[in-house]
Amino acid sequence: MPELILGGARSGKSRYAEQCARDSGLEVVYIATAQALDGEMQARIEHHRAARPPHWRTVEAPCALAATLAAQAAAGRCLLVDCLTLWLSNLLCADAESLLATEVDALSAVLPQLPGQVLLVSNEVGWGIVPDNPLARRFRDEAGRLHQRLAAQCARVTLVVAGLPLTLKESS
Amino acid sequence: MPELILGGARSGKSRYAEQCARDSGLEVVYIATAQALDGEMQARIEHHRAARPPHWRTVEAPCALAATLAAQAAAGRCLLVDCLTLWLSNLLCADAESLLATEVDALSAVLPQLPGQVLLVSNEVGWGIVPDNPLARRFRDEAGRLHQRLAAQCARVTLVVAGLPLTLKESS
Amino acid sequence: MPELILGGARSGKSRYAEQCARDSGLEVVYIATAQALDGEMQARIEHHRAARPPHWRTVEAPCALAATLAAQAAAGRCLLVDCLTLWLSNLLCADAESLLATEVDALSAVLPQLPGQVLLVSNEVGWGIVPDNPLARRFRDEAGRLHQRLAAQCARVTLVVAGLPLTLKESS
Repeated sequence: MPELILGGARSGKSRYAEQCARDSGLEVVYIATAQALDGEMQARIEHHRAARPPHWRTVEAPCALAATLAAQAAAGRCLLVDCLTLWLSNLLCADAESLLATEVDALSAVLPQLPGQVLLVSNEVGWGIVPDNPLARRFRDEAGRLHQRLAAQCARVTLVVAGLPLTLKESS
Repeated sequence: MPELILGGARSGKSRYAEQCARDSGLEVVYIATAQALDGEMQARIEHHRAARPPHWRTVEAPCALAATLAAQAAAGRCLLVDCLTLWLSNLLCADAESLLATEVDALSAVLPQLPGQVLLVSNEVGWGIVPDNPLARRFRDEAGRLHQRLAAQCARVTLVVAGLPLTLKESS
Repeated sequence: MPELILGGARSGKSRYAEQCARDSGLEVVYIATAQALDGEMQARIEHHRAARPPHWRTVEAPCALAATLAAQAAAGRCLLVDCLTLWLSNLLCADAESLLATEVDALSAVLPQLPGQVLLVSNEVGWGIVPDNPLARRFRDEAGRLHQRLAAQCARVTLVVAGLPLTLKESS
């Protein structure tokens, strides 16, 4: 059953998700949504990569997340997607903007059918002042809606604060 | 007893409050604080209105919230105020700025005396970087102070994250 | 054992920490990290000071927090540090920027050895949209990393929302 792991920037959500993946005892495939478009982003990607066990396979999925999950999921395997907010951001910036609704629907449709374990990491971005920038407002609306939709589908939802997990949902 | 429902943007707090109102089994009056000053705001208002049951009565209260609550509250009735942050924003932007302290005091005074059920929805806005804009800083200070003050008066306070309620306070 | 008290702007985290200090029954020393660099900051400092019991001693530690804690800590004494985010901000703005890593390491090293009670107040700042400003991005990264590191060292971690404490960690 899929799990959603939410948290602010530098909340330790990625580290917590990686610990969950390690603890699963399953083969781990890391689904990276980041694109190294500038030096700062490249540095963040390297920082995260260096913290992961070297035997984890990495698959890049900047946009086609549903298709990548469908292709990679298997019984006895744990897919760790880090993170949904960058994926949303990639879709919003893509030339074909209608891609976003299609890809979000595809993710929502494929999620309940995936074998094995799936961990979805995402950023909370809507707890500040309304941004001046219309694209930023659109982004936080899309992120918020995505989190609500996926949280309803996930068996477990965790909010990470200062590296500490707070359980928001746990289906028995 | 009044209830305070907090959450970030697109956290599902309005939907959660509407579900609480439905579950109450009481006659619901929706107290709308939004003003349709531009197209984006108008679209948000329509989006929210379309999601509500058509038999709920809507009363607009962009500024005079305490007076509206006093006039509308009744045993067997549930008032749903959505949302306090827009009301604060309206008061901050009003010509007579001293209105804000007066209206906040009036709300705080009337709240414990209202018959029936009252649900207050509000946005958490203070979890980001300090805004450059002095008005935005003032706004998040006022919102934070208002939340503290009302939370102390409410029987129940809930934080909504990704559509999931987290109980912060529950008086027995 | 040290305690970490987190919250957004105007969440009531300072007031909550002050209540904890009062409830400890210990002699309280208030460690102030704020610097009154402008009128708005001066007003905030005065506002906080007026809310504290007059017999609490105040020690200023805008940068040298670890040394101040080591000098002030004593059995039967409660040190209340308010707040870590201003201290981080002071270090980031200091001429000698390498100070930050040194001071953070020093705080982390001294913390488990301090006698008496230590309450650390800090702001959550990473729950909004990624800031445009590179210094703001750096700041929220440093704040997030600091919170993770200190939370792992603290016996108790509390998130304050609307004046209400939510326990994130409690070691028995």
